[in-house]
Amino acid sequence: MPPVPRDPVERVYREIQRNVRDLSAPALGEAFSDLYDACGDVLTRATAVPLATQIPNKQYVSFELDGRRSRAVNTVLFERSVQDWRAFLDGIYANDYSGLTSEVITRRVYSLAISFCAVIDLTRRGDQKTPGTFFEWLIGHLFAVRLATNPTKRLPVLNLDLTTTLPTDFIFDLGEGRPKFHLPVKTSTRERVIQVWAHQRVLDGVYGTGRFLGTPVILTETKTDQQSRSVVEICLPEQWRIYQMHIAQLRRVYYLDVPAAYARLNDVFPPLHVAPFGQFFLEVDDLVA
Amino acid sequence: MPPVPRDPVERVYREIQRNVRDLSAPALGEAFSDLYDACGDVLTRATAVPLATQIPNKQYVSFELDGRRSRAVNTVLFERSVQDWRAFLDGIYANDYSGLTSEVITRRVYSLAISFCAVIDLTRRGDQKTPGTFFEWLIGHLFAVRLATNPTKRLPVLNLDLTTTLPTDFIFDLGEGRPKFHLPVKTSTRERVIQVWAHQRVLDGVYGTGRFLGTPVILTETKTDQQSRSVVEICLPEQWRIYQMHIAQLRRVYYLDVPAAYARLNDVFPPLHVAPFGQFFLEVDDLVA
Repeated sequence: MPPVPRDPVERVYREIQRNVRDLSAPALGEAFSDLYDACGDVLTRATAVPLATQIPNKQYVSFELDGRRSRAVNTVLFERSVQDWRAFLDGIYANDYSGLTSEVITRRVYSLAISFCAVIDLTRRGDQKTPGTFFEWLIGHLFAVRLATNPTKRLPVLNLDLTTTLPTDFIFDLGEGRPKFHLPVKTSTRERVIQVWAHQRVLDGVYGTGRFLGTPVILTETKTDQQSRSVVEICLPEQWRIYQMHIAQLRRVYYLDVPAAYARLNDVFPPLHVAPFGQFFLEVDDLVA
Repeated sequence: MPPVPRDPVERVYREIQRNVRDLSAPALGEAFSDLYDACGDVLTRATAVPLATQIPNKQYVSFELDGRRSRAVNTVLFERSVQDWRAFLDGIYANDYSGLTSEVITRRVYSLAISFCAVIDLTRRGDQKTPGTFFEWLIGHLFAVRLATNPTKRLPVLNLDLTTTLPTDFIFDLGEGRPKFHLPVKTSTRERVIQVWAHQRVLDGVYGTGRFLGTPVILTETKTDQQSRSVVEICLPEQWRIYQMHIAQLRRVYYLDVPAAYARLNDVFPPLHVAPFGQFFLEVDDLVA
């Protein structure tokens, strides 16, 4: 047995890692709550320093601790409360969404996700991988609970004489005669986003258009300029429209912190549906109908 | 004016950087020759340590200097000779390929490219960007000379009410009624390769299929295991076949160090044409016919 790490964040992270094979298990939710607690102990010691931004209706801070700085945290969405998070989990485990709005759900999940990312920024220099892996587990768990099924990351291809398997992002298979969800999960996309459309195109081509609902989940597109200490969102809305027209059709793009430029894609024709993550929990029955 | 760097490799690199706006200029070839010279001074001081490999007909070494190690260098292709490189440049500037085979050209270009990459590995910790940028300039120069035209990296889109520009890899436009080359240039691809097919799909969709010949140029797919000091090639040939069938059609994939698993894609049906880079210089007239 490897030694138990003394750092509480590290210890709970390892515990989650040991249990992600069954992503729909409520025990995983308990571990996420413990991790949220442990992150709170770090953030309580840190100082929240305001950042400048021109983005309408958004305000950001960076946590600072021992000379290190975290990524930008949107204070309009950020309400660090393990109690609220546990109440949200109780709701989704009971399949009871009364009193939960899209805004409330988005806020709960954003606050946990960005807490962990900020703690890793403050404690591990240059570690980009751990926040990405953690965010994939977190969103994977919430989808698995909501859809009452575990995902796969590999699909068989049987195409005449070509037999192989295709590695994929999360695929949630709702069973015969029902759609499957194609769920790429990223902390941010930048210029790599074209991969999401390309993977959707491959799924459409190999298995047939309409069988997989492409619903990527992304944390944020913020970038902090270190000189001016100001926050911008890196967005390529015109390119997204071209990908949606010419590569494949995504059904939704869910964000925890919806970028202003992408929110406007809901209002052009043809629209590209960009929504806060919480909306998924309320509209999933319509999506699969 | 910024100060002139004392490191000769750095100084010549900056000189190339100042001149890449005219990628077809022979002056750039002179600077590449000077850079090759400067890299030789570093590599002469380094020790070439053999690496293990199971890849048929390939042998690799890693250069070591002051406790640092370079990426794997294929000794079957590596013949460090600035004189041979200059003779090759004289040939392509004069559009005279007599005596030049695909193998000879590939060897000349590989030896310069991998020399620079190895020097950066030995002198700048963790710098992945400089080798990639340099390799793009080098291949861009050779394409620009061979096609007698400079590339663009941005294309206008005019599609009904949608007017924008599309950022692209190198595009070499041979003029009205002739094909354009779509030239992604990468030192290696790994899982990011699907982007190349996706960009080709966008070009086919926006401008019409057949107008852009997709011909990516890649240095190598080697990976050195640091524990066992052995070299493997990271290849996904079955996925490449699926991309070629379902996303878009690439006309050629050129490699400086052709991976064994991708070379075999020439022999399956439908074939995917993977060729040593030198072949481009000899077959380009057939490709555009």
